[in-house]
Amino acid sequence: MKQVSRAPELITTQWFNSDSPNSLEANLGKVVLVEVFQMLCPGCVSHGLPQAQQVHNMFPKSEVVVLGLHSVFEHHDAMTPTSLEAFLHEYRVTFPVGVDAPSKAHDLPQTMMTYGMRGTPTLLLISREGALAGHHFGQVPDLRLGAEIAALMQGETVPRKDDQIDSNIRPDSVVDNTCTDAGCTVKDF
Amino acid sequence: MKQVSRAPELITTQWFNSDSPNSLEANLGKVVLVEVFQMLCPGCVSHGLPQAQQVHNMFPKSEVVVLGLHSVFEHHDAMTPTSLEAFLHEYRVTFPVGVDAPSKAHDLPQTMMTYGMRGTPTLLLISREGALAGHHFGQVPDLRLGAEIAALMQGETVPRKDDQIDSNIRPDSVVDNTCTDAGCTVKDF
Amino acid sequence: MKQVSRAPELITTQWFNSDSPNSLEANLGKVVLVEVFQMLCPGCVSHGLPQAQQVHNMFPKSEVVVLGLHSVFEHHDAMTPTSLEAFLHEYRVTFPVGVDAPSKAHDLPQTMMTYGMRGTPTLLLISREGALAGHHFGQVPDLRLGAEIAALMQGETVPRKDDQIDSNIRPDSVVDNTCTDAGCTVKDF
Amino acid sequence: MKQVSRAPELITTQWFNSDSPNSLEANLGKVVLVEVFQMLCPGCVSHGLPQAQQVHNMFPKSEVVVLGLHSVFEHHDAMTPTSLEAFLHEYRVTFPVGVDAPSKAHDLPQTMMTYGMRGTPTLLLISREGALAGHHFGQVPDLRLGAEIAALMQGETVPRKDDQIDSNIRPDSVVDNTCTDAGCTVKDF
Repeated sequence: MKQVSRAPELITTQWFNSDSPNSLEANLGKVVLVEVFQMLCPGCVSHGLPQAQQVHNMFPKSEVVVLGLHSVFEHHDAMTPTSLEAFLHEYRVTFPVGVDAPSKAHDLPQTMMTYGMRGTPTLLLISREGALAGHHFGQVPDLRLGAEIAALMQGETVPRKDDQIDSNIRPDSVVDNTCTDAGCTVKDF
Repeated sequence: MKQVSRAPELITTQWFNSDSPNSLEANLGKVVLVEVFQMLCPGCVSHGLPQAQQVHNMFPKSEVVVLGLHSVFEHHDAMTPTSLEAFLHEYRVTFPVGVDAPSKAHDLPQTMMTYGMRGTPTLLLISREGALAGHHFGQVPDLRLGAEIAALMQGETVPRKDDQIDSNIRPDSVVDNTCTDAGCTVKDF
Repeated sequence: MKQVSRAPELITTQWFNSDSPNSLEANLGKVVLVEVFQMLCPGCVSHGLPQAQQVHNMFPKSEVVVLGLHSVFEHHDAMTPTSLEAFLHEYRVTFPVGVDAPSKAHDLPQTMMTYGMRGTPTLLLISREGALAGHHFGQVPDLRLGAEIAALMQGETVPRKDDQIDSNIRPDSVVDNTCTDAGCTVKDF
Repeated sequence: MKQVSRAPELITTQWFNSDSPNSLEANLGKVVLVEVFQMLCPGCVSHGLPQAQQVHNMFPKSEVVVLGLHSVFEHHDAMTPTSLEAFLHEYRVTFPVGVDAPSKAHDLPQTMMTYGMRGTPTLLLISREGALAGHHFGQVPDLRLGAEIAALMQGETVPRKDDQIDSNIRPDSVVDNTCTDAGCTVKDF
């Protein structure tokens, strides 16, 4: 196996739809799709989460693992784990969902910070070797996502990043945000 | 004007998108559409609320008033006024929304109890004279709703009830509920 | 009854889904919706015809009559009555559909010319008194259409024209046309 | 290269959107998607053809080729090549489309017969080696199709047939057919 740079681990405080914590490490050898969302992000509810659920239902779980990550960067009081749990129940989300660990100094949670995400929904694809192979903000066509997953299933090892990851995010400057049908964007990103 | 039986007044604890409380009484002379919803009810989010918003945008506000009513009968801790306020912001709901007053003895809030509603979304139509002219649970086709509103605008005075109102609801028996794409139903109703 | 100017009669060569010819004259006293379309116009197929079919199914036929009008202004060899008949069968259009009479000197058929239509789909609304009460090119929201039909059902008598009818159409200048998802437009109109 | 059984060649009388005839033979080495349709089949128009067009637009043409096949098995007079040409223009289909050669003795055209197709839309996937790798009747989810195409791009050589191919089709018994939103089915198949 070629040596590849591992994607940063998910930093979470608790998990729903799962008896125990989940991690990228524990899923080495499988393709992992991480659906990063906020429960009050319209674009996540209308297409990001249904698409992730469809991947969860369609691909063999021994080869493709779907994990949700609730990365709240706004309205923190409105999107608590208690609200999230009811949301997952009512919207019939059945794959494991972790809560992205809050940061002490600013609004963006830790995993979101680490990956330099631009907002929600964000979809990460992790190769069998644990490398970051896809990083999409907004809506990804089903046809393309299916093709990317299948390529990773067959052992593509070269990391591929569709969105450039920007480590220069300055969360201190985050004051407000804007949601559209496509998603919710971190302010001044 | 023919004497008609007035629809029961809305019983609310607070209002969003409005500087002051709203009521059916205050809107006598206009047609009123009341969109009864829960923020975590998928059918409310996907069609009930967008339809109400479209009525709010399309009809002259001097003649047709749209009011939302957040009637929580499940997951009360998850759908607090704090969460509701963020929800209304993110989903760009701009018409006034009241919080249906909780009941002391059971899960169903007071206005929902009074009207014998079967779940969410429920759409009420109130005539210019203040009579209950429509009571729909679930999805109402736009064509039909447009026709009903226009008929009321032109002064139809006979109360019309599409769903039979059942005053025999026994909330003590409400244990659980079921949500589908169409809406969320009060248990054992 | 107030005297109103009658809408021009439909000029047709044959009818489908009907044992005998139809006309505006024969439907005086009822509200008439005329759905003007071409079978190869994508916007007609995706929303104009389904909407007209829904009106046909939903409103009482003793009060609201739906008539289709196949007004071909391009690709005449491709949209013959033979093709139209198969189209109506496959797409399950059940209301009467007339063929707009071809013009001798130019591409636009006669009824389309008379009304100065801009393309397809065009939706005409005729009042109970036979007056032209609505003339829409492109997509009409269901909510608005339902309201307009209901207003006419209740006897609104003042003609209302949403699109200005332009009698200055110069069909000689029609060379080509453009179709979008919304509809197909007569060239240089 | 492993020896595989070649998929039967397309039997066509003419092509649109192409300067010269197309064939499976000429595309050996590439993945080929064949979209089999009828221009008056609602399921083909609403999802089969748009999906094929999306594949044509999204994947590199040096690796994935999309071919349409107009396989008329009903209403032959209504779906002539003349009508097809206008249809392709109005619906903005830009990939090459061949006309499946009519049979002398019965309603089903020759390629449709050879493959034992059940109706339209039918989607065929041909591997780089020319083997039949997928045969779907009706609607195929984009996620699955994307995955199947990507697997074939990476050299999967084992033929895979999602629908059992039935060579026992008896076209003499074809009298009528039924169309639904999903597609049009050959009678008594």
